[in-house]
Amino acid sequence: MNVNERIEAVRTLMREKGIDVYYIPNEDDHLSQEYTAEYFQCKSFISGFSGEAGCVIITEDFAGLWTDGRYFTQAENELKGTCVELMRMRQEGVPDALDFLVDAVKEGGSVGYDGRVVSAAVSLGLKRRLAYKKAKLVTEFDLAGEVWGKERPSMPLEPLFTLAKKWTGESTEERIARVREAMKAKNADVLVLTALEDPCWMLNVRGNDIACTPVVYAFAMVTMRSVSYYVNLKKVDEKLKTYFRDNKVTLKGYDQLAKDLAKLHGKKIWASMNQLNTHLYASLAEDNSIINETSPITMFRAIKNSTEIRNLKNAHVKDGVAMVQFIHWVKENVGKGDMSELSAQNYLYDRRGEQKDYIEPSFHTICAYQANAAMMHYSADENNFAMVKPRGVLLVDSGGTYKDGTTDITRTIALDELSETEKKYYTMVLKGHLALARAKFLYGTAGVNLDILARGPMWQMDIDYQCGTGHGVGHVLSVHEGPHGIRWGLPRKTEGERFEPGMIVTDEPGIYLPHEIGIRIENELLVVKGTKNFYGQFLAFENVTYCPYDLDAVDVKYLNDEEIDQINDYHAMVYEKLKDLLNESDRQWLCNACRKIARS
Amino acid sequence: MNVNERIEAVRTLMREKGIDVYYIPNEDDHLSQEYTAEYFQCKSFISGFSGEAGCVIITEDFAGLWTDGRYFTQAENELKGTCVELMRMRQEGVPDALDFLVDAVKEGGSVGYDGRVVSAAVSLGLKRRLAYKKAKLVTEFDLAGEVWGKERPSMPLEPLFTLAKKWTGESTEERIARVREAMKAKNADVLVLTALEDPCWMLNVRGNDIACTPVVYAFAMVTMRSVSYYVNLKKVDEKLKTYFRDNKVTLKGYDQLAKDLAKLHGKKIWASMNQLNTHLYASLAEDNSIINETSPITMFRAIKNSTEIRNLKNAHVKDGVAMVQFIHWVKENVGKGDMSELSAQNYLYDRRGEQKDYIEPSFHTICAYQANAAMMHYSADENNFAMVKPRGVLLVDSGGTYKDGTTDITRTIALDELSETEKKYYTMVLKGHLALARAKFLYGTAGVNLDILARGPMWQMDIDYQCGTGHGVGHVLSVHEGPHGIRWGLPRKTEGERFEPGMIVTDEPGIYLPHEIGIRIENELLVVKGTKNFYGQFLAFENVTYCPYDLDAVDVKYLNDEEIDQINDYHAMVYEKLKDLLNESDRQWLCNACRKIARS
Repeated sequence: MNVNERIEAVRTLMREKGIDVYYIPNEDDHLSQEYTAEYFQCKSFISGFSGEAGCVIITEDFAGLWTDGRYFTQAENELKGTCVELMRMRQEGVPDALDFLVDAVKEGGSVGYDGRVVSAAVSLGLKRRLAYKKAKLVTEFDLAGEVWGKERPSMPLEPLFTLAKKWTGESTEERIARVREAMKAKNADVLVLTALEDPCWMLNVRGNDIACTPVVYAFAMVTMRSVSYYVNLKKVDEKLKTYFRDNKVTLKGYDQLAKDLAKLHGKKIWASMNQLNTHLYASLAEDNSIINETSPITMFRAIKNSTEIRNLKNAHVKDGVAMVQFIHWVKENVGKGDMSELSAQNYLYDRRGEQKDYIEPSFHTICAYQANAAMMHYSADENNFAMVKPRGVLLVDSGGTYKDGTTDITRTIALDELSETEKKYYTMVLKGHLALARAKFLYGTAGVNLDILARGPMWQMDIDYQCGTGHGVGHVLSVHEGPHGIRWGLPRKTEGERFEPGMIVTDEPGIYLPHEIGIRIENELLVVKGTKNFYGQFLAFENVTYCPYDLDAVDVKYLNDEEIDQINDYHAMVYEKLKDLLNESDRQWLCNACRKIARS
Repeated sequence: MNVNERIEAVRTLMREKGIDVYYIPNEDDHLSQEYTAEYFQCKSFISGFSGEAGCVIITEDFAGLWTDGRYFTQAENELKGTCVELMRMRQEGVPDALDFLVDAVKEGGSVGYDGRVVSAAVSLGLKRRLAYKKAKLVTEFDLAGEVWGKERPSMPLEPLFTLAKKWTGESTEERIARVREAMKAKNADVLVLTALEDPCWMLNVRGNDIACTPVVYAFAMVTMRSVSYYVNLKKVDEKLKTYFRDNKVTLKGYDQLAKDLAKLHGKKIWASMNQLNTHLYASLAEDNSIINETSPITMFRAIKNSTEIRNLKNAHVKDGVAMVQFIHWVKENVGKGDMSELSAQNYLYDRRGEQKDYIEPSFHTICAYQANAAMMHYSADENNFAMVKPRGVLLVDSGGTYKDGTTDITRTIALDELSETEKKYYTMVLKGHLALARAKFLYGTAGVNLDILARGPMWQMDIDYQCGTGHGVGHVLSVHEGPHGIRWGLPRKTEGERFEPGMIVTDEPGIYLPHEIGIRIENELLVVKGTKNFYGQFLAFENVTYCPYDLDAVDVKYLNDEEIDQINDYHAMVYEKLKDLLNESDRQWLCNACRKIARS
């Protein structure tokens, strides 16, 4: 079946069930926002759009894919020749997907979706809005799944593994105790953990259920006396069973959670309506009271402890070694034989793979040549890749999950002498990147307050990068983790959290000119304490990514003295960290890459 | 009675009425946040603190004044020798005033305040919180007013006047029609206008009920067929009565609103719970439904029309003339005879007074010498002023209300050669001021996104100014008007509004070192449209304040080329605007003040 046929098949099922408007979101049953198991990628199956953000809405005479600015170019390409209309989110005249849903249904009609992959918060909101039109909400059918049928990948069954205290800094017992303290402070009887990362963090376990993300499809439920872990028991070997028994964790089947929730009565249950799916929410009896707040583990994960910080810096040193080997190789070999986006990214995978305690890439590498780099989340594959030629730039956004931490770094590599304009763009991106990295700010500051530092140089040129400036990074977990982040505008409800010492956030401004060029520079920054005085507690960022910027791409005339000093200091630090871990050829290359620059 | 005796008198009344905790806010019965008629200044009467922000809480054994960073130094001075404890808002360990209120009342006790000066939103929130402690809320007694007794100033009775269309750009009929359109869009039957500025704007009337703010103590109620204006009829002369009759506006007594509200049944009433006082809210019958949103006039006032913009620029030209005459006079005369903060500010009042269509100062001038300038809202008076000597700086924050607009400007004047450190501080404040003024930003940007541009240079030195960076300015109304503003942190509910073309916002970073020095530089900026392209609609600021910075206070070594160009361009513009309106001596002085600077 091609995309149009799939959509027709969904429409046939819609008519059978009496559904007028059908919604296919991007999430899984844990409401993961971005990366999910293949089993859950219904939106991609139905529309042909492979990006990690977006949703599909189908009516009798319309099919639309909503996605955001990072994916416009990719979606345009992938939707070509289908009946699916691209709905460019947040562009003038483009309705919000949920608003469209409500508008599209006729008086007394019905809206449908699979309630397992939509949050209770969304369903409760929609129900209220649909009531005005006397329209129904039907959440029990997975129509895209039905169309997918036997071809649909099965739920992952990858084995679990544990992370020792030397990696996480805290035993499972200590982490459970910390969670219970948070519950006590809110008088919660029960805490329901639905975000994929939460049980992993609390129980010091990891898995391999999602490509490049070491999480486990599992839920957990915590009371003052018990911890239940809901997971497909086939994933747990005997050794692991002993581990859970020793930590007083009861193992239960993955589907058992809904039944256990239904047994709760008169309890104070901590479960965020944004993190609990509609199906699980429906199983709760009405005589419970709900603490509708984000799980306390969100913040526990975001604020790294001293062991995690020591370890993640070590991971970044190893990552820096791999990156230096890679960039040196690219610069030396481009134009000397066939180099493709694919062969380049494989070379980098291999270099990371040689590093100690490496687990896997922390996300699919973006290795994009020149115009391809304008697609922020471009991904080369066997069917679609470009050759890398000795002109323009190669943008490489990649990272590794090591037992000691998760990395995320972007470098844009000049493949030859760049044009004046290309250098200007690279330097402007670098200026923004540096301004954010050197910021000092009072406690209480949030990402929305700092975004302009990175974005400002682009806005001054009437250019925008249509995405955030930075995101949190998990510890041997998801490479994108909240609650904090750096973006402009007014904070959405679940964001805009204040910076706390110990948080990691990326600093990744860019310029993306469709069909021309893409430039991005990304480091990870650690939030650290600065001066405490009369005005309060100042915070600052510490760079934990160790890899040179590309001085071949810099036009010094756009830099001021402060910026030049900052680059020289950073490069001196990078050289110091890496020089003894490289072979002589790479070391010499790095020494030159970290050369001191000056105003001409 | 001194302050301690007044507080004891309140305590006596509290015991009589069975009130455990008594709250005295800063607001009037329109919930004005800052400037109010003297009649409403109970907080100042009771505590002796004369600042424009804060509140008092009294219990059996505690009396506290809560105020924010702008007023710490002033409050310390004014509270000296009283039993009133200074509660420094937003400092570590200082509870929020309303949290304190809830904590301080005992189980089953009671909290009291005058419901006329507290919003329905606050009362509804408190009621819910007090219910947990089975505590009561008593809102019918004005205990501070009772203690004040016969000494209390009466409600103002100043006459009204009208503003013709040539000043406001819209007739009263047109404005009422615009309001009704907004009501129609929300299906509102009734709109209740409680903010002091709202009826003034809609009816093109002004008054003189609050010092330096040309508003009228009045309410209005709008339906699709009627407009009622609730005002003390003694303020309205025959000519005005005709004016209102011609515009189909019914005049009613000030106290009639509560009675008219009580008559509404089954209506959809637009009234913000933040703008409606508890007393008025209580008069509404339960069978109405409430649209709890800010009045549409808030946004109408904030976005200036083309006539208002043309006029306000004219007001700023006149204001610039007065400021240039003043600064020239200060620089020339300091050290040559007695110059005091008072005589200086009077000289400035006189210069503004000579300008055409001048009405009054737009707020009490802050004319503060050196260390006094560290008190952000310092105000010299006959009992308390400093002599201005030929060293250090004079900070002057002042403005005028003209028929063509309202101005607000701050200049910090070097009275002699400044020290290295003083120059550094002045230049850092200027750098922040310039960075905000030259910002370009996409539509959707809010004040919380831009604050760091102005504040950044101070934060980089581990210094903060403990207030916002900018506020909206009314048109021949209040000098501080929302909904927008520029500050850091997460937006409070009623703030954080996006910038719209036509808004005015101030740009006023500063440095305030207690007992040492205060520096602030303030211009007003107009939000204007920039490029519209692929990325969206860019906005930018246009400077509408025309007065030179003090180059004698600038240390060029801290400025980069971009900043130097910006200063030179601004000064060229200022000189061009003012040169033909000054006498030869002032013109020559201005010419030198606007001299071109260069990197040394």
